[in-house]
Amino acid sequence: MGRDLTALFDPGSVAVVGASDDPAKYGHAVASQALRAPGRRPVHLVNRRGGTVLGRTAAPSLAAIGEPVELVVISVPGAGFEAAVDDALACGARAIVGITAGFAEAGPEGLVRQRAVAARVRAAGAVLVGPNCLGIADNTTELYLASDRFAPGGIALLSQSGNLALELQLRAAPHGLGFSRFVSLGNQADVTLVDLVEDCARHEATAAIAVYAEDFGDGRAFARAAAAAGKPVVLLSAGRGAASARSAQSHTGALTTSADVVAAACRDAGVELVHTPREMTVVLAALSAGPRTSGRRTAVFTDGGGHGAIAADAAEDAGLDVPELGERAQARLRAVLWEQSAVGNPVDLAGMGEQNPHSYADTIAELLAADEVDAVLMTGYFGGYAASDGGLGGGLGGGAAGGPDGGGDDRPHDGPDGGPDGGSALAQGEQRAARAIAAHLAAAPKPLVAQSMYPRSPSCRILAAAGVPVFAATEDAARALAAMTARGAAGAPALPALPEPAEPLRDTGYHGVRALLDSAGVPFPPAREITDEAGLLAAAREFEGPYVLKALHLLHKSDAGGVALRLADADALLAAHRDMRARLGAPSYSVEAMADLTDGVELIVGVNRDPRFGPVAMVGLGGVLTETLRDVAFALAPVPARRAEQLLRGLRTAALLGGVRGRPAVDVAAAAAVIERVTTLAAAHPEIAELEVNPLLVRPDGAVALDARAVLL
Amino acid sequence: MGRDLTALFDPGSVAVVGASDDPAKYGHAVASQALRAPGRRPVHLVNRRGGTVLGRTAAPSLAAIGEPVELVVISVPGAGFEAAVDDALACGARAIVGITAGFAEAGPEGLVRQRAVAARVRAAGAVLVGPNCLGIADNTTELYLASDRFAPGGIALLSQSGNLALELQLRAAPHGLGFSRFVSLGNQADVTLVDLVEDCARHEATAAIAVYAEDFGDGRAFARAAAAAGKPVVLLSAGRGAASARSAQSHTGALTTSADVVAAACRDAGVELVHTPREMTVVLAALSAGPRTSGRRTAVFTDGGGHGAIAADAAEDAGLDVPELGERAQARLRAVLWEQSAVGNPVDLAGMGEQNPHSYADTIAELLAADEVDAVLMTGYFGGYAASDGGLGGGLGGGAAGGPDGGGDDRPHDGPDGGPDGGSALAQGEQRAARAIAAHLAAAPKPLVAQSMYPRSPSCRILAAAGVPVFAATEDAARALAAMTARGAAGAPALPALPEPAEPLRDTGYHGVRALLDSAGVPFPPAREITDEAGLLAAAREFEGPYVLKALHLLHKSDAGGVALRLADADALLAAHRDMRARLGAPSYSVEAMADLTDGVELIVGVNRDPRFGPVAMVGLGGVLTETLRDVAFALAPVPARRAEQLLRGLRTAALLGGVRGRPAVDVAAAAAVIERVTTLAAAHPEIAELEVNPLLVRPDGAVALDARAVLL
Repeated sequence: MGRDLTALFDPGSVAVVGASDDPAKYGHAVASQALRAPGRRPVHLVNRRGGTVLGRTAAPSLAAIGEPVELVVISVPGAGFEAAVDDALACGARAIVGITAGFAEAGPEGLVRQRAVAARVRAAGAVLVGPNCLGIADNTTELYLASDRFAPGGIALLSQSGNLALELQLRAAPHGLGFSRFVSLGNQADVTLVDLVEDCARHEATAAIAVYAEDFGDGRAFARAAAAAGKPVVLLSAGRGAASARSAQSHTGALTTSADVVAAACRDAGVELVHTPREMTVVLAALSAGPRTSGRRTAVFTDGGGHGAIAADAAEDAGLDVPELGERAQARLRAVLWEQSAVGNPVDLAGMGEQNPHSYADTIAELLAADEVDAVLMTGYFGGYAASDGGLGGGLGGGAAGGPDGGGDDRPHDGPDGGPDGGSALAQGEQRAARAIAAHLAAAPKPLVAQSMYPRSPSCRILAAAGVPVFAATEDAARALAAMTARGAAGAPALPALPEPAEPLRDTGYHGVRALLDSAGVPFPPAREITDEAGLLAAAREFEGPYVLKALHLLHKSDAGGVALRLADADALLAAHRDMRARLGAPSYSVEAMADLTDGVELIVGVNRDPRFGPVAMVGLGGVLTETLRDVAFALAPVPARRAEQLLRGLRTAALLGGVRGRPAVDVAAAAAVIERVTTLAAAHPEIAELEVNPLLVRPDGAVALDARAVLL
Repeated sequence: MGRDLTALFDPGSVAVVGASDDPAKYGHAVASQALRAPGRRPVHLVNRRGGTVLGRTAAPSLAAIGEPVELVVISVPGAGFEAAVDDALACGARAIVGITAGFAEAGPEGLVRQRAVAARVRAAGAVLVGPNCLGIADNTTELYLASDRFAPGGIALLSQSGNLALELQLRAAPHGLGFSRFVSLGNQADVTLVDLVEDCARHEATAAIAVYAEDFGDGRAFARAAAAAGKPVVLLSAGRGAASARSAQSHTGALTTSADVVAAACRDAGVELVHTPREMTVVLAALSAGPRTSGRRTAVFTDGGGHGAIAADAAEDAGLDVPELGERAQARLRAVLWEQSAVGNPVDLAGMGEQNPHSYADTIAELLAADEVDAVLMTGYFGGYAASDGGLGGGLGGGAAGGPDGGGDDRPHDGPDGGPDGGSALAQGEQRAARAIAAHLAAAPKPLVAQSMYPRSPSCRILAAAGVPVFAATEDAARALAAMTARGAAGAPALPALPEPAEPLRDTGYHGVRALLDSAGVPFPPAREITDEAGLLAAAREFEGPYVLKALHLLHKSDAGGVALRLADADALLAAHRDMRARLGAPSYSVEAMADLTDGVELIVGVNRDPRFGPVAMVGLGGVLTETLRDVAFALAPVPARRAEQLLRGLRTAALLGGVRGRPAVDVAAAAAVIERVTTLAAAHPEIAELEVNPLLVRPDGAVALDARAVLL
C-alpha cells in the first residue's frame, strides 16, 4: 500500500517558514516559487521579524497565522529547526519539508537530533521530507516548493543531488520531456526513497520515475517497489570506481552500496541503470516514446555505408545484436531497393535515398515486417533533404549550412529549410517518406530509433511526433534502442521473495556448516570429523579412497598446508595426519572421500548479506583463477535455478561449462539446483554474513560441494 | 619525403569536366564551389554540350579551353571517365580529381579499369585522387572542389565517407573547430591515405589530421606516416563488431582489417582511435586546446557531491586514474576551503562556491600545483552564476531558464545573463574566478577540462578562450581529458621497423620450425626427431626423463592423442610410441625432455601477417583457457622486450604472472625476451603467414618454448 503522501503533494494550505526578501537565502527562492499559484491554495509566509516578504505580510510565527496549515516548509538556521517542527505540528501540519541542514550529514550528533525530530513527526501522524533537502514540486497540483521550475510532463524526479536534478531538468526540454513531480530526497529521516517510489507508482500523471540516489535506505524495498511500479524506473547511480565511492562516503555519510550489488538489484527489479545525466535523459526519452520489446535483433539502416558501420558497432557496444538478415528478408529488400543497395545488415540504400526518398519508407516497412527483426536503428543523412539545400547527387550533397547546433547533440532542432535550387522535390519526398514511416510504425509497432545529422529537420520532427526518438549522436540512438529492448527482455522482473527466517545457525565449524547445507539438499562427498588416529581409521573404513584430509579451525587451511589430496589409502591418510598434526597442531580434522575431478569445472557460490540489499548471491568460476579473473555474477538471493543457470551461462568463461578442447559438457542444471539451495538457505539465515561453497565441483554427471564456510554477522 | 601534391592542393588553374546547371548532378555542386574564389586562379567549366553553365561560358572539351590546366576535376558518367583522363593529361594536367564512380567498388572489372587509368596518370607524372570520390577542398589556398563548405581551421579531414565527413563538419563549428583541408579518399587508385597523411604532416596550416577510413591501403605505411606526423592523428574506424565488418566488405570491396590490428597499430603509432563522429569531435577539441601530459592521475573537482561522483566514475571509465590525494595536498586544499569541503578526490567545495566563487580558482591553483595531480576535471554548476539569475543559497540555485540547448551537448552556448535579484555579484565573482583560473593555467600548464551545465556562459567562454575545453556532457569531458593525457602517455610512438627479410623458411615441419626459432635464440627443451624404436632409445639416452612424445605431421596432435606427457623412462617412451604408432600411424615422432611445469604459467606468442599491417604479434595466456578467455594483446611486430613486458603486464590475468595463492612470481623478463626474438624472427620472414609458440612456459627461473608451428603464405 505504502504511505499516504497526499498532504505532501496536494496540501490544502502551505506555509514557508524562513521566507525572506534576501536573495542569498534559500527561503527567498522557495517563497517566490510557492507564490506562483496563489489561487490554488493559501500560501503563508513566515519570518520571525514579521513585516513584509515579497510584498506580502509575513506572519512572525506559524501560530500567528491563526489557522491550521497542512504543509510547512522549514528553511531556518539549524538551531531553530526542532522548534519550527514543533510549531508546525502544533498548527496541525500533516506534512513538513525540511530544508534546514546540519543533521545526519554533519555527524553522529546530527543523526541523533534527526532521529528524534523524525520520531516526533511520525508520532503526530505527519510526514517529513528531508531535512537537508532542497524542496519538492508537483506540477499536477501546482505545488512549487523548490527553487527551480520544472516544465510539466510525465517524469517524477527523485534526487539526492540538487545540481544533478538541475542538469536533468535542463537536459529534459530539448527531448520534449517534462516533470510531474520533483522531490529532493535530503536525509530521508522519515519519508524515504521507497515511500516516494511507491507513491509515484500510484500517481497517474507520472509515466516514469527517475532517481538519483546515493543512499538507498532499504535497498531491497527499493528494488521491490521499483519492480512493482508498473512504469519505467531509471536510476542514475555513481560509485562504480574507487574514487566515487570515496566521494559518496564523504558527501552523505551514508553507506555506499557496492556497484555490483546495485547493478544486480536493478537487473532483477527491471530498473534501467544509467551512469550520467546525459544517459539518463536519453533513456527517459526512449522509454517515453514508442513500443518496447524483449528482442535485441536490430536492423541498422542507412544511406551511405560509413554511418551504417559506425552505428552497427555502436549498437553492438550497447548490447544489441546486429545479425545478418536471412535470405527471405534480403530478397524482399532487394525487391524494393536498387542493385547497389546492401541488404545484409546494415541495410544501405547506397545513394537510392536521394534518387527516391520513398525508398527510406519502403525499407522501413520491410524491416518492421520481418519476423527476424526486433528493432530498427536508422542512421545518417535522413532529414537533410528537407533541412538543407537538397541532395546533389553525391553523398556529401547539401547541408553545409544546416548543421546540428551544440555539436550535434540529442534532439530535434531547426535547420534552414528548402533550398533555392531544386531541393524542394527531394524535401517534399523526404517528408512524405517520414509520414509513411510513421504509418508503417503505427501498423506494425516495433522499437525504431533514428540518428540524424539534422535531428530538428521537418522530416525528423514528423518521426519524433510518431514516437520515433531522434538523436544527433549515434551512441545515444544505440543506447536509446537498448533501453527500448531491455525492460521487455527481462520479462516480468524476477525479484525473489525472502524466505521466512529459519532456526539460526550456531555451529559455524566446518561440519556444522556442512550439516546445514546438507539439510538443504546440497550434496557433499562422505566426510567424518575426527580428533585422533582411531577415528581416522574408522572413517577410512566407512568409505573408499582416495581420501582428502583437511585440518579444521584454520583460517586459510589450503594456503597453510592444511589440505592433503589424493591420499590413496589408510596408510597415506595416517601419514598425512601425523604430518599436519606436527606442523599445524590443529585439534580436529576432516576425512573425506575425494571427488573425481576428471572433466570437472570448479565454481564458487557465495551469499553476502549487504546492509542495504540483504542477501546477495555471487556465482562464478572457482579455483586458482577466481580472484584473478573475477569472472563472477551477482543476483539478489534467493536465486531460482533457472536464473542461476542464466548467470552461469553469462560468465566470460561459460565456454568451459560446455566443454572445450574435446572435454564433455558439465551438468549446469545440477550446479544451478545447488545454487538455488545454497542461496535460499542463506536468505533464510539473516544471522549469516557470508555463506560460501567453494569449490562447487560440476562434472558431466552432477555437482558436488567440496568445501564450505560461513561467517556470522 | 612523400609525393609532391602541390598541384592537387594549390594548382595554378582548375577545370571542372561535367560542370552542369542541373542541381541533381554532382558536377553542378563542384562547379558552384569552384567558382567561390574566382580571383585566386582560372576556373574553367567544361560541358560537352558547351553553352553556359552557372552563367559562364562552358568549354565543350578540355582541349577547347586552349591553354594548359593544372588540376582537372572529372565528374562525368562512368563510360567517359578514361577519355576525360586522357584529355586532361593531354592538356597538361598535373592533378586529377576523379568523382566518377563504377570502378573497384563495382567489381573486378572496375578494378582492372581503375588500375589501368591510374597507371596512365602516373606514367604522365600526374596524381589522381579517386575515382569514386566526392572532391577535395583546401581552405588555405581557396580551393573548393567538393560540394560542401568547410569552415577554416586547423584540421585536415581525410574521409572515405561523404556523409560522415559532413557530420564531422557540422559537429566541428560549435567546438570552435575548422578545417584546413578536406579530401574525399574515394578508391585511392593513385593518391593514397598514406600520401595524404604525409602531405598534411608537412602542411603548416594543418594542426591535426582527422581520418575516416575503411581501407587503409598499406596499413603499416599509414601507421608509420601517422607516427612521424608530429601532430595529432585521430582515426574514426568501424568494424569492431561482426555487423560492421559485413557492412564494410559489402560497401567498399576492400579487405576489412580486423579491429584488433587497427587498435594495436593506432596505439603503437600514437594515433587516437575513436568510434563515433561525436567522439572524434570531442577528441579533436581536446587536442586543439591546452597542454598535454603523459600522466593519468586526475583530480575531479566540483561544488556539489553528485557531479563529483558521476565524473569520477566517467573519468575511470575513460581510463583515467582518480587517486585519493596525499595528506600534503589535502592540507593545502583545507587551508583555502571551508570545513565541509571534501579534499580527498573528488574535491568538493560543498557549497563554498556560491558563498565565494573565487574558491573555484583557489582550488584549481592548488590542484595545478600539486605534483601528484597530472590533470584536472572540473564538473557541475560552474558557469551558472553568470549564466542565470544568480545563486540562491541552495544547490539548486538559479538557472531554470538558462539550460544548455540541444539537451546539453558539447560546447559553449548562450544562457541568459545576469539576473534581477542580486545574482550579479556572484556572476562577477564567477567571471573573476574564471580569469584567475586562466592565469593559474598559464602559469602552471596541465590538462584541464570542464563539464558545465552552462557551457556557453560568460565564465565558461573565458575558460574556453584560455584553452580549457568545456563540455556539457560529463562523458565528453572525461573522454577529452583522456585524449589530452594519452599521446604523451605513449611517449614517442614506438613503431617498430621491419627487419631485412631473411633466408626464407622451407622446412615447416616441427623440427624445421624449432631449428629456425632456436637459431634466433628461443630456448626449447632437448628434443630429437625419430622414426623408429632405435632412434627413440638413442634419444632417451641423450637426455634424462621424464619425457614427452609427440606424433609429428598431425594437424591437431594434442586433440588427436598425439602427445604423451610425463613418460618416466625409456620403457614408458617405448610403450607410448607403440600405442601412437598403432593408433595414428604417424611416420615420425619427437622425443623431448619434459619441462618442469611446477609454478609455471603457460603463455602463447604468435605472429600473423596481416594483409594491410604486415606482421602483427599476439601475446596472451596460453593453455586450455586461451580461446575461452581470449586474454590476448596485439602489437605490430617486431615487439621489443620492454613493450612485450608491458603487453604481458596489461593482460587481465597478469596477476598470475606475479604469483597467486602463494605461488612465486614468474620470470616475465625472460618471457619478454623470447617474445622479442619470436616476433623479430617472424617479421624477417614475409613468407610466413603464421608463426606460433604455444605454450611458452614461463617459470620463476626462465622461459622455455614447449611447442611451435609455422604456416607459409
